[in-house]
This record gives sequence, structure tokens and C-alpha cells, in this order.
Amino acid sequence: MNLILLQPDEWLDDTHATVRDPRRLRHLVDVHRATPGDSLTVGALDGLMGRGELLALSDGEARFRVTLDREPPAPLPVHLLLALPRPRMLARTLEHVSALGVKRVTLMHTRRVEKSYWQSPELKPEKIRQHLLLGLEQARDTRLPEITLETRFRPFVEDRLPALLEGRRGLLAHPGLAQACPRAITEPTLLAIGPEGGFVDYEVERFLELGFEGIHLGERILRVETAVTALLARLF
Amino acid sequence: MNLILLQPDEWLDDTHATVRDPRRLRHLVDVHRATPGDSLTVGALDGLMGRGELLALSDGEARFRVTLDREPPAPLPVHLLLALPRPRMLARTLEHVSALGVKRVTLMHTRRVEKSYWQSPELKPEKIRQHLLLGLEQARDTRLPEITLETRFRPFVEDRLPALLEGRRGLLAHPGLAQACPRAITEPTLLAIGPEGGFVDYEVERFLELGFEGIHLGERILRVETAVTALLARLF
Repeated sequence: MNLILLQPDEWLDDTHATVRDPRRLRHLVDVHRATPGDSLTVGALDGLMGRGELLALSDGEARFRVTLDREPPAPLPVHLLLALPRPRMLARTLEHVSALGVKRVTLMHTRRVEKSYWQSPELKPEKIRQHLLLGLEQARDTRLPEITLETRFRPFVEDRLPALLEGRRGLLAHPGLAQACPRAITEPTLLAIGPEGGFVDYEVERFLELGFEGIHLGERILRVETAVTALLARLF
Repeated sequence: MNLILLQPDEWLDDTHATVRDPRRLRHLVDVHRATPGDSLTVGALDGLMGRGELLALSDGEARFRVTLDREPPAPLPVHLLLALPRPRMLARTLEHVSALGVKRVTLMHTRRVEKSYWQSPELKPEKIRQHLLLGLEQARDTRLPEITLETRFRPFVEDRLPALLEGRRGLLAHPGLAQACPRAITEPTLLAIGPEGGFVDYEVERFLELGFEGIHLGERILRVETAVTALLARLF
């Protein structure tokens, strides 16, 4: 936790806030070894960042005087289309992408996504939100990513994907496609990444027909969570 | 498991091999749904890759006729110096770096590495080897990385690090250092990455004195496993 991310209901007034949840209180005590008078990095959810002076710390509450004075880091110019990973990998991947600065993620169904994954408790909004918050706290960012679920491939690709692609460069990452992953791009991008086992040919064809460029990361086949981080780090 | 990696004791003769361990047998049956006649990607540990025709599959054994005819993917030209992460993160990080093509890793002590981590069962050679093998099986590679442990910072940095740096470009990744992480480099590199909480100033100074260039990945502070993948993907 490199940032204390203050939620709307944690503000007492414009310059004071309290943290009461056990996870962050424990972290303040055990890891930061915080004592009153300490100054810590804080941020307002979806707002500015700054410093929080710890005024009081008890078993049930930490109270801060807060000064917010700077913007959070710039987001990555990417909307990530990710075939729904298995639940444990989803959890870690959401933390990675949130920490790396992705602000829009669509989790989509594809042929090789196991249908049971859509029933996972990891997809409950509160669980998703928790992983995203952990990523923001890690990276020192305040803007919560938006997550959309698309449980059917064809209606999504036919009805909604063309509009998402407008004004964005579409990149389809899949082993064996033609082009090496570009580097250091800056334009708005729609990046599609398949499930373990990859997209099936039919899916690859649909994306390419819509105007996506097929890209690869080399001969090595990476796990989804490794591939997501590697692609984002190389692209932007 | 995208490659069946054959160990020296699994060869019957020059062209036949058997796999007997339950993990890979189960994977062949449950995930690959392999049946005799199928052709699968195989490799010889530290050797060539090719195809294995499944001749027989029983509860206790899979027997292959093997043709090896191509080199594994090129390694990354990097020796990774990694402050020992906490055990669960070490396990995942070893899989990531093995999959990404790193062939030399030194796990080192620094001020902010908890001493107890050096007692973890994850550091047993057999555990380390298992994580590295999983990375090779994932990425389709055959060459096992070499791992060295350096449990004391000063003797390592003073006595052995200068020789490691000879003929290599030293890069020290640490938030706040001067230079943005370079991209697409090809020269032999020695890449140092700190623990959760980072290097302390004294350590940063030692590396810089030896000729390391200080690099950063931007404002965001990443977890070690995310940072390792992001750095390798951006550098090479």
C-alpha cells in the first residue's frame, strides 16, 4: 500500500478523513509503523493526490489532515479486451492492469473460455473493485478502471466492437500472427488478448476483418497474466 | 504445458522416451485429451525441440517416439539480479522469468529483504527447479536457467559483482532514478531489481559507483513480479 486511497464516505470535511477498515489499519500499523505526526501519501478516489498527516491512530480508526495538490499519473491510452481468465488469474491480472494504468477493461467470452468461469465469485462487483483498488494503492493512482462484462462473443463483436474501435488502433495479440508487437505507441488503442489456449481461428478472422492488426510477442507462449503485463510494457 | 520437456532419465533410447510423473500424465489426459497417434511438441532438457508421437498411454506412463529438429527460442541477453522476494512472489517470478527467456538469475540479499525469506522452503533447489521447469513448459523452451543465491549484500557487491559487470551493460531499476527504461536493447545486460520497498540509498549508491545506469518505469510503483515482466518486455 503505497497510497492511502480515500473513499467518498471516509471524508469528514474538505481536509479531514478517517480510515476504519481493518486491512488498511493493520497495514498502517504493521508495515508503515505509522505514528501520529507522520506524513503519508494519500489520494481521493477518482481525484487528486497529496499528503495526509496522521492526527490520531487507534485500534478502530486512523484520522488524517489531508492536502491534495497533484494529479495522479497519466493513464495508459488503452482499452483492454481480455478473454475472461480463470478466477485466480483474473484476480492477479486485474491488480496488474490497474497498477499499470489501464482504465477500461472489457472481459469477454471466447470459445476457449470455460463457461463456469462466468459463475466465479471473483466476478462479483465488490471483488473486482477490491482487486482494482489494490492495484491503485500499489501504483499510487486514484482513478478506478471501468470493467465491462461481455458474456457472448458474437453479439459483442458484431454489435458493440465496431463502435469501440472507432478512433482507436485495434491490436490483436495472438501467437503466430504477422507483426511483431509495436513499441512506444501513443495513440488510443484497443488491445485484444485471448484466453489460455488462445483465440480460435474464427475469432482471429472476425477481429482482423474489423481492422485489428495481428501482433505477436515472439515464439514464446506466455501465460495470460505475463502476456498482459509484457504487452502493455512494450506497447506504451 | 505447451511443451513436454524430457529429462535425461526419461529417454529409453535416441528416439523413444517415457513420461511417468502424475502431474504431466494428468495434464496429457485432462487438458490435451491425448490419445495414441497424437503428435505433441516435445523438447530435450537443455537440448533441441521437436515432435513426439504418442505411442502408448496408460495410467502410469506415456511413451513417445521423438524427433528433435530445431533450436529452442533465443534467450534474453540478460543476467537478472533480483533482491529475494517473499516466497509466494518468488515462486511466480521464477515462472515468469523462465518463460520470458532469462537464463541467469542471482537472488541477492538487500536491506529490505526480510531475513526469514532465506529460510523459505521455496528456496530448496528442487522447488526452484520445479518453478523454472513450469516456465519452460509454458513458453516452449528447453534451457534451464541457472540460479545463484547471494545471502550477504556487501561481499557480493564488493567481491563478485564487478566481474559480473564486465562486458555487460549494468542497469539498476528503481523508482525515481534519472533515466527512463531504454527500449529494444540487444547488448548483454546485468539488470538489478530491488525488493518490495526498494533499495536503500546506500545500495543505490554502490550500484551507481560500479557503473550501473539508474533507470525507472515511470511514476507508478509496481509489485516486484509486475516490474520484472514489464522491465524485461520493455528492454528486450
